[in-house]
Amino acid sequence: MPLEFNIINSDSSCRARLGELKIRDQVVSTPIFMPVGTAGAVRAMTPLELKRTGAKIVLANTYHLSIRPGEKLIEKAGGLHKFMAWDGLILTDSGGFQIFSLPKVKVTDEGVSFQYEVDGSPVFLSPERAIEIQNAMGADIIMPLDECVPYPCEYNTAKNAMKRTSNWAKRCQKAHKNPKQTLFGIVQGSTYPDLRKESTENLLALGFEGYAIGGVSVGEGLGIMKEVLEETVPFIPSKYPRYLMGVGLPEDLIASVERGIDMFDCVIPTRYARNATVFTNRGKIRLTHKAYRRDFYPIEPNCKCYTCENFTRAYVRHLFAANEILGPMLASIHNLHFYQDLMTRMRQAISQNSFSKFKKEFLSSYSSLGPKTSARDCQFPED
Amino acid sequence: MPLEFNIINSDSSCRARLGELKIRDQVVSTPIFMPVGTAGAVRAMTPLELKRTGAKIVLANTYHLSIRPGEKLIEKAGGLHKFMAWDGLILTDSGGFQIFSLPKVKVTDEGVSFQYEVDGSPVFLSPERAIEIQNAMGADIIMPLDECVPYPCEYNTAKNAMKRTSNWAKRCQKAHKNPKQTLFGIVQGSTYPDLRKESTENLLALGFEGYAIGGVSVGEGLGIMKEVLEETVPFIPSKYPRYLMGVGLPEDLIASVERGIDMFDCVIPTRYARNATVFTNRGKIRLTHKAYRRDFYPIEPNCKCYTCENFTRAYVRHLFAANEILGPMLASIHNLHFYQDLMTRMRQAISQNSFSKFKKEFLSSYSSLGPKTSARDCQFPED
Repeated sequence: MPLEFNIINSDSSCRARLGELKIRDQVVSTPIFMPVGTAGAVRAMTPLELKRTGAKIVLANTYHLSIRPGEKLIEKAGGLHKFMAWDGLILTDSGGFQIFSLPKVKVTDEGVSFQYEVDGSPVFLSPERAIEIQNAMGADIIMPLDECVPYPCEYNTAKNAMKRTSNWAKRCQKAHKNPKQTLFGIVQGSTYPDLRKESTENLLALGFEGYAIGGVSVGEGLGIMKEVLEETVPFIPSKYPRYLMGVGLPEDLIASVERGIDMFDCVIPTRYARNATVFTNRGKIRLTHKAYRRDFYPIEPNCKCYTCENFTRAYVRHLFAANEILGPMLASIHNLHFYQDLMTRMRQAISQNSFSKFKKEFLSSYSSLGPKTSARDCQFPED
Repeated sequence: MPLEFNIINSDSSCRARLGELKIRDQVVSTPIFMPVGTAGAVRAMTPLELKRTGAKIVLANTYHLSIRPGEKLIEKAGGLHKFMAWDGLILTDSGGFQIFSLPKVKVTDEGVSFQYEVDGSPVFLSPERAIEIQNAMGADIIMPLDECVPYPCEYNTAKNAMKRTSNWAKRCQKAHKNPKQTLFGIVQGSTYPDLRKESTENLLALGFEGYAIGGVSVGEGLGIMKEVLEETVPFIPSKYPRYLMGVGLPEDLIASVERGIDMFDCVIPTRYARNATVFTNRGKIRLTHKAYRRDFYPIEPNCKCYTCENFTRAYVRHLFAANEILGPMLASIHNLHFYQDLMTRMRQAISQNSFSKFKKEFLSSYSSLGPKTSARDCQFPED
């Protein structure tokens, strides 16, 4: 078995658990946050800087990489790890989430047809092809092709997509030929508890080494996502790693860890960074706001990241104003460090059975915003 | 005296010299290449990476920084070194070169009026104002405002600009109030030997700690630039550091060192990097060329930079194709490392009195290009 998962401690106050994921010669602690490097690079970060933030697993995208530069080229380069010079672990998602957000998507039992977003050329992805690509690229954890429905979604549409996802999971399992890679299953079923339960049972019957929850982060909001977790997580046996796909903001991560999630990926820290939005313990702030023009404090005064140890908000703001690439670079370093630090703090809290206390303290400070921004307004405020 | 300059060895075969520039508590070897960070940041580089390339002095632009974020803000931040987190040395140029390339520039004896290139707002810069800004920002070496004429330029225009530059140099010297900073003089006079001589003599009469040669790199080409150097350098006494402004390509640097130049700045390594053009010992290549799609060698096989020690041409090419910021980042690291390495090799050659031999060997290899590109075609070839 390429993957081993051990639970070190289950928090006594909630479903949160501290775990250890062993893959190849590497051991990583969970709950874990995995930065996203869609095209085989985490945006505006060198692998060296990425490692310094504490990242252990990086996500890359099957469908994007299969088209550009092509999985055969990556295989010839010695695999994805070597190609992108990342000696940590890699997870490749099948692209389902991205594909189903594109226009002109046509899905049949065979697979999914769509237009490549860069040049409009037609692409067809079947479950078998998704695995073939991932087998060639050689990520440590690979994902089956799934059908991800939007929110809201009618019951019958959600049911059909869930059934198709189960069938595709079986075909992916059969197509999977690289024993060094771990294949996860993906639970679908939209917001319907019976469908989520059935989806989980279907996958468990097939038997995977880890279970992902897909179909969230599609606009349903934190309240409904919590419900989905509460109606899904209990059906995934404790011994398996549980991965919530595409989530999320700090408050989403905390709510999900509390409900038993072990793994996360999300573009938020890097995407927000490129828009000058950075995370602090008091909430997120947008550095292009004029309030930071003469702010000679670090983004987060207690932060140990390269950005906060060397630069002020005023300087990073200036970089964005001057359209300097160093702006997104420094903001990305900070945001990814903030996320990894948040995971570390959650793991420490779980080890001390004090997750609920941590959550309460973090959120009370995180929502007590500074005078210049408000919790929801500051996401992309105008200057 | 904030600056001390010692010549360690003068090459026996040409005017090239190995020197030591002492400023504050720092000693740097010359000939030196100074990367350009116009807005207080070398594009796509963290100061940490910049330091690793071997850079010791960084250039920043007086006129850009005075408008955005403003010199008062930089002063309040603790000066430019602290603001940009650069603990090496800094040279600020007055902006003359940039200003005179803008449209709608009006120059009188008082100073120069122009429109700020970003928003079109009117700006007036006098010699006194240029020094006031630089005194506030606190760079180690500062430059007077000069009038830079285009190429070709009529004799009388060049003469008037040279005379005005001499007068402005005197006013700058008078206005200079920060004894911790070294003020250089700038020689003008276009391509006219008598004007270059007169300009140099005027500045020497005023007395500066170092002498820059301006008005080159304005489209005159290497042949004419060599002539300008041969007609100017001999008039600048050996004991002063000589700084050739805005130059250049590797072959330009070699030709200029051979003619007695000690200091250089240029945007070429970083600007070319952002266009995927990288320097190798066999010439420059453009990575977006399809020839590099399956090229799994480093950009320069013997290079010790972070990029070449970890990534292939195929990967960096992929990053540019996918519009990933990491592309310009990795190419900038390599190009700046290549330039610093070139300077190191030149200094070693001078110390062994073998500069002419080094030049011959470098240029024979540098022009013996690989099969995929040619010396001039590869600057910005189409894919």
